[in-house]
Amino acid sequence: MYGTGPPLVTPFDADGALDEDALRELVGWVEARGVDFLVPCGSNSEAELMTAEERARTVEVVADEATVPVLAGTGSPGLTETLEATDAAADAGADAALVVTPFYYGHSMATLEEYYTAVADAADIPVYLYSVPAYTDVKLDPDTIATLAEHPNIGGMKDSSGDIQTFQRTQRRVADLDFDLMVGSGGVLAQALAAGGSGGVLALANIAPEATTAIYEAHEAGDHERARDLTAACVELNYAVTGGYSVPGLKYAMRERGAPAGHVRSPHRPPDDDAKAALDDLLAEFEDLRADL
Amino acid sequence: MYGTGPPLVTPFDADGALDEDALRELVGWVEARGVDFLVPCGSNSEAELMTAEERARTVEVVADEATVPVLAGTGSPGLTETLEATDAAADAGADAALVVTPFYYGHSMATLEEYYTAVADAADIPVYLYSVPAYTDVKLDPDTIATLAEHPNIGGMKDSSGDIQTFQRTQRRVADLDFDLMVGSGGVLAQALAAGGSGGVLALANIAPEATTAIYEAHEAGDHERARDLTAACVELNYAVTGGYSVPGLKYAMRERGAPAGHVRSPHRPPDDDAKAALDDLLAEFEDLRADL
Amino acid sequence: MYGTGPPLVTPFDADGALDEDALRELVGWVEARGVDFLVPCGSNSEAELMTAEERARTVEVVADEATVPVLAGTGSPGLTETLEATDAAADAGADAALVVTPFYYGHSMATLEEYYTAVADAADIPVYLYSVPAYTDVKLDPDTIATLAEHPNIGGMKDSSGDIQTFQRTQRRVADLDFDLMVGSGGVLAQALAAGGSGGVLALANIAPEATTAIYEAHEAGDHERARDLTAACVELNYAVTGGYSVPGLKYAMRERGAPAGHVRSPHRPPDDDAKAALDDLLAEFEDLRADL
Amino acid sequence: MYGTGPPLVTPFDADGALDEDALRELVGWVEARGVDFLVPCGSNSEAELMTAEERARTVEVVADEATVPVLAGTGSPGLTETLEATDAAADAGADAALVVTPFYYGHSMATLEEYYTAVADAADIPVYLYSVPAYTDVKLDPDTIATLAEHPNIGGMKDSSGDIQTFQRTQRRVADLDFDLMVGSGGVLAQALAAGGSGGVLALANIAPEATTAIYEAHEAGDHERARDLTAACVELNYAVTGGYSVPGLKYAMRERGAPAGHVRSPHRPPDDDAKAALDDLLAEFEDLRADL
Repeated sequence: MYGTGPPLVTPFDADGALDEDALRELVGWVEARGVDFLVPCGSNSEAELMTAEERARTVEVVADEATVPVLAGTGSPGLTETLEATDAAADAGADAALVVTPFYYGHSMATLEEYYTAVADAADIPVYLYSVPAYTDVKLDPDTIATLAEHPNIGGMKDSSGDIQTFQRTQRRVADLDFDLMVGSGGVLAQALAAGGSGGVLALANIAPEATTAIYEAHEAGDHERARDLTAACVELNYAVTGGYSVPGLKYAMRERGAPAGHVRSPHRPPDDDAKAALDDLLAEFEDLRADL
Repeated sequence: MYGTGPPLVTPFDADGALDEDALRELVGWVEARGVDFLVPCGSNSEAELMTAEERARTVEVVADEATVPVLAGTGSPGLTETLEATDAAADAGADAALVVTPFYYGHSMATLEEYYTAVADAADIPVYLYSVPAYTDVKLDPDTIATLAEHPNIGGMKDSSGDIQTFQRTQRRVADLDFDLMVGSGGVLAQALAAGGSGGVLALANIAPEATTAIYEAHEAGDHERARDLTAACVELNYAVTGGYSVPGLKYAMRERGAPAGHVRSPHRPPDDDAKAALDDLLAEFEDLRADL
Repeated sequence: MYGTGPPLVTPFDADGALDEDALRELVGWVEARGVDFLVPCGSNSEAELMTAEERARTVEVVADEATVPVLAGTGSPGLTETLEATDAAADAGADAALVVTPFYYGHSMATLEEYYTAVADAADIPVYLYSVPAYTDVKLDPDTIATLAEHPNIGGMKDSSGDIQTFQRTQRRVADLDFDLMVGSGGVLAQALAAGGSGGVLALANIAPEATTAIYEAHEAGDHERARDLTAACVELNYAVTGGYSVPGLKYAMRERGAPAGHVRSPHRPPDDDAKAALDDLLAEFEDLRADL
Repeated sequence: MYGTGPPLVTPFDADGALDEDALRELVGWVEARGVDFLVPCGSNSEAELMTAEERARTVEVVADEATVPVLAGTGSPGLTETLEATDAAADAGADAALVVTPFYYGHSMATLEEYYTAVADAADIPVYLYSVPAYTDVKLDPDTIATLAEHPNIGGMKDSSGDIQTFQRTQRRVADLDFDLMVGSGGVLAQALAAGGSGGVLALANIAPEATTAIYEAHEAGDHERARDLTAACVELNYAVTGGYSVPGLKYAMRERGAPAGHVRSPHRPPDDDAKAALDDLLAEFEDLRADL
């Protein structure tokens, strides 16, 4: 995968049910604003709050509707469910599977290496590693990544640590391999691309796909300064929809922009009035930026 | 619930499939050695490594085979799956549902209060809170617990923090309510009972049910010194099968004692030789203790 | 050391200067209410906010004024300062030195073992280990403690982890040695004594020495139930002056009781009005308890 | 401050005493290889392992010997010691004071704001904030930094979080103020400079001042690609002398390069043979790089 794309939020209706019509509409909404691929069932999708059937259905709908490649989130704490979800994603037409480090129980790097090898051995589509310490308390080690990168069916990684030193350490190990090192933090998109990253899977690409696309295009055109300036211009909005107000903030902001993002699912709750006001201000700033893209 | 019981391990066969025959046999094995209730699909069961169907089936088999009350683990990161699992457990005949604090995404205490209220409102069987910071990085606050304890369908709690000060702070808030405060750490069983706890849901009750029962009985008989001495005598074994070598260590030790504990499921891996030797020593010590029970 | 005693707070005047008169008076205030020893320059003393000279002077004044044994806090992140402070404490007449695990830089257990051995080799008075994970992010391992306990000049330990399982695991390793295992958490005082602990170094003994003494005496008299009940009765007050409102809360509460606790030193700030109101309520509860001691 | 400089290591002799001759020589060694300023008594100096007198003397010697500006580390957990050290540094001729967030006791952002204001009000030289979460578990919030940046005597900050998103968020708030935002992580030097940072206080500048200077010069010349490539080329060496093998690894590597870095001080211990071998390899790589600078 190269370029930028969102870990697509999943629209739920007021009763919390999967809203397939809105999901299809949302695929069109982000594609119309510029994305290179779509990632259903990533962390922003609230996949952990869905049943396995709902997750599979979400991938199916997105794969059916999308005109760009689909990298489907299929990771669970256990191998069994991960393999089932990966098979279902492959059957649904997903191009690759994004597999989060198994969480809940703690595991050593040696165990994670064995686990990912088992997933990649069994999968019919390429497997991408996914390291997101904020949710899992695990950070894949560059040496472990480098070993896994040699597996013929491991295609790349999403690094959501936000740690650009580790990103560079990893990139140095995988630069000569067929391994797409993607960044998962919109706040360091330009920096990750400049460090050799192939793209970004970004919450920011849900709410501001015009910006993430423009950053990638500036990078590709060799205009690193513009890529950096645009990244910096989006850094507060990015923080607000991730570490700040999280998925509820992201979905609220998307709805304010007119995207069919739908409701959050419990235990997530809508943002409070202070959060909404802060997000409104950031959206207004973004409109000014967008006029210049 | 009162007394002691295990968060029952789930026997898997060599291929990782749920071994229902072994599970039935295991229910008999622990019941023969003394338990007051059984907890299928707790953390020790590797429930997070099973599919929703496997979890439901595990509860069904245990509820069918058990002659003691069944407290079924039904918590997931999301409300939808939690409600489905709780309904399935109620249908299978479980007496109550143990609902872990929703993990992966972080939540405030206010959100957790809203979440547990929704679960308890919907459930056909009593709901027990489950706080296990080692796995979830969340520790339920005594004030939040006290508020939830007033809900007519919240029956109690399993506190696996190991923190006896917090246990006492909680007990003081719920002492006059119909709320079973249970401890989830075998290493402080006597202390939790003496502090007013109604019982324990204990990994230790998988490998040494004779001991956990003896501790509870000593407590009930007013022999707190014996309860404390037995707890202290088991503290290394308890540590080894929890913080030390975790579920793989627990299952190995159970098999060494002749229990049909089965294999672990990936990403869990069998303990290494050093771990096995340490567990063997602790089992030998336990045999000496058991002779005196 | 046996029995209970406070990590004595250090009275500062309104300008933040060490108030020696108040310190002498405070020694008398707590001694009059019952303590078995005094611990100047522990965490509650704000020792980390004092210069080395002020710390040495504090120990000197307390050692001069006290009629009970003095265990002086002398630990710093580095060996040099620790040795200097330990020498000064010995010269001032302290009976033993309490040495916190070196903080700021992280260290392995092997490094800590080497460090404590060096301190004990050099010290003219017995050395006590001090493990306080809330401040240092380090928890001494029971096996490391057991090794150090064999050193002829290491006399014991203060365990402020609040973790009674670890306390028991440690006690089992040192029971046959000349090693005083003391607890540093008032909320589990009865439990630690019942587990074989020799006493407690307790923030609670600053504000409620009558209670900590009564708990110890009940324990010594074999009345474990009373020891537990009194511990439980003090658990909210203990939490409030430690994890809740910390040293500023403790000093405020002491002043409200009439103790010459003095002001806090920057960066500490006085508690806000909500905290004061909560502390006032807890003090009123304590007065009721005290009437029954 | 602008440009790059090292948090200078402090040479100790074999007995652990401050080696002033070596310190003077070391100032010359790094200045000869290119630094824009020197930072005695930063984290790499093992300042926390020195007495207040030794820290003051270290600043004095460096200020006396240096031909570049001196930013002296003067922060302690308490205001009193911080003010004393800051006064001493000013008297010794230091140009500014680098004040780490007070550690050991935890503090709120509001408390830290009050603390830094008090330090800056009292100091005779400009104060720089210092945020180093790996050692202190505290990360200064961009809004707090922005407020403090308006203080006339707060001149800048060293951000050692390694978090480039936060660095950008901070820079956006202080861009129009007279506030030098410096980075403390050599692994993201080019990225921090490109984001508007004024320079770097870098462990890497101890062992490889030629490289950090070259990165800064490339940045100043507008050759961001070269700045990034050199940063990436140094990232493994940087990791090895910070998160990997820490100060003992840094001092070993410096000695191997011929720098008079001296011994570490207890509790630090020399690196083991595996660490030395890894560091030797990285030094050989660096020699190749250096040939091209």
